[in-house]
Formats: sequence, C-alpha cells, structure tokens
Amino acid sequence: MRWDDIDLQVCSVARALSVVGERWTLLILRDAFLGTRRFDQFQASLGITRHRLSERLGKLVDQGVLTRVQYSEKPPRHEYRLTRKGLALYPLLMTLSRWGDEWMDKGEGPPVEYFHQDCGRKMQPILTCSECGEPLRPQRVTPMVGPALAKHIADVREGETSLPSFPLLAREVG
Amino acid sequence: MRWDDIDLQVCSVARALSVVGERWTLLILRDAFLGTRRFDQFQASLGITRHRLSERLGKLVDQGVLTRVQYSEKPPRHEYRLTRKGLALYPLLMTLSRWGDEWMDKGEGPPVEYFHQDCGRKMQPILTCSECGEPLRPQRVTPMVGPALAKHIADVREGETSLPSFPLLAREVG
Repeated sequence: MRWDDIDLQVCSVARALSVVGERWTLLILRDAFLGTRRFDQFQASLGITRHRLSERLGKLVDQGVLTRVQYSEKPPRHEYRLTRKGLALYPLLMTLSRWGDEWMDKGEGPPVEYFHQDCGRKMQPILTCSECGEPLRPQRVTPMVGPALAKHIADVREGETSLPSFPLLAREVG
Repeated sequence: MRWDDIDLQVCSVARALSVVGERWTLLILRDAFLGTRRFDQFQASLGITRHRLSERLGKLVDQGVLTRVQYSEKPPRHEYRLTRKGLALYPLLMTLSRWGDEWMDKGEGPPVEYFHQDCGRKMQPILTCSECGEPLRPQRVTPMVGPALAKHIADVREGETSLPSFPLLAREVG
C-alpha cells in the first residue's frame, strides 16, 4: 500500500493520518492553536522552506482544516484560521503534548502547563468514557465492527473489493 | 530546522512527534493495539516493504515504545509487544480514531465502535480536565510557561542557546 492511498482504508485512524500524518503538519497546527495565523509567523517558528510550508498549508485548506482569509486589501494579505474541523483536532494536540510531558521531559518537567479557565486550576488532559466518565484503559475497551466496516466486509465477501485493511477486518473475513 | 532535530524543541508536541511522527508509525501502533505482534502480520496489514517496516519497528524498540521478545527458540522467532510507554499512546490512537469518525466517515458511520467493559456501554472517548472532569475546549484552556520552558527562556536570554522554538517562547523572549 502506498501512503497516498491510506485514506482508502476503512479505518478512522488511517483516514485521520491522511490529513495530519505528514511531517510538519501537526507542528503547523500546534502553532495555529497557539495563535499563529500568518505565513511568515509559521515560517519563523518552524524554519522550513517556504515551498514546503506553502504546500502543507494549502493541503490543510483543501481538507477544510484551515481557512484562508484576506485580512488586508492593499496590499492583499491573507491569514490562516482553524475551522471547526481544525478546532476539533485540539484533543489530538493536547494528547500528544501530554504523552511528551510524561515520557520525554528529560527530567526537567513539562515545557508548557495548562490552566483551565472553567475550574481555575492547573490541569492535565485525561481521556475518558463518554458514558461513565472513567479514564479509558486499553485493556477495558473492546473494538467492534461498526457500520462502515460491516459494509466493507460484505463487499469483500462478495468479491466487490479487494482493498487491504487492518487486523480487525482480517479477523472477520479470515 | 530539519525534521530530525525536532526533538530539540522545548515542546512536548515536537518531542512526541519525533517518536510517532513518521509515516506508518502510528498505523503500526494501531495494529499493535489490535493485537498484532509478529513481523509478517504487520506486513500483511500494512503492505509496506520489509525494509521500511523493519526500520520503523527498530526505531520504536530503540525508543522504548515496543519491546522485542523471543517467543520460540528453534527456530528463533521474535515478536513485538507494547511497553508501558507504548500503552500510554492509547489515548492518541483513540483520539485520532474519534476525529476520523467525526470528520471523515464519508456518511457511512464509524468503521469501528468501542465497547467499554467498565460500564457495559458503547462509548466515545472524550478529553476532559483532570481537575473538574469537564470536556476541554481550546477557548477555555490557557497555555503557560512550565519549568522546562522557563529554564530554556533563561538560557536564551543569557545567550547560552539560540535554538528556535515555538510561538509561546517567541512571545516570552520577544
């Protein structure tokens, strides 16, 4: 399988990575969440070539994660803002940050700490169950075939597709 | 800045991406969480070259995310298991999956659904505040300079380093 085809997998992890899985893309989004909007600001922070930055920003605009907005007419200037789809990546950035804090802090403590305005306290993000509110542990969560994968399995069985997929599918189709 | 140097940033997002930010790495870990342990199983699922898979697995072992365990003496065979550091990436995978479900399901519903054994219900993961338990929204969370970044800022001011860093640092150092 080629990387450019991973969005063809019937898998939300693969589909999400087809948007955010390129080098630099999540660092661009980190900066966007910290308030960066302008091309030159992104470039100063990331130190990548204008060509690469332009390509990454353009892809994020095409995918609806950022929107390009004109903020000055003369001269014409644009900035990049997070869309709702982009803002929905906040838990992803916070989760990356948390893992880095816990496992890669070099013994110096966290680079950045987070203050929650709703409760007025310094906090860490915790991934919890939408139903019972308890923290999620992998040993206690069972993945099950959902609607889209069930349809795909039926298509594979009828020979209508031969797309490769991932372990959960292999278990079902055999 | 070169990609290979991003772990030098005083930023937990960048440090985390220095481990999981390569193409295929998070799909390898997805498969590991679904129970895949053996080289040939990873290869069958991902369809990448043996060379690339071997390089990625080796890097994850070097970084302490996977451990390579011998499971047969004659012939000698090994498998890859998630370490504690690797298991701690579970929220990252679940968060990617959730975003893909919400924003990239092509109208067919989620490929995979999750059953929480603790409460006996189908659930979604929600990122919440460790202190008040409420869901985190970016507008209500303020990033602040933590211990490691404070030290880095002092070093920059004293001219002891000129490492580029990210917007939060630029705001502080000016």
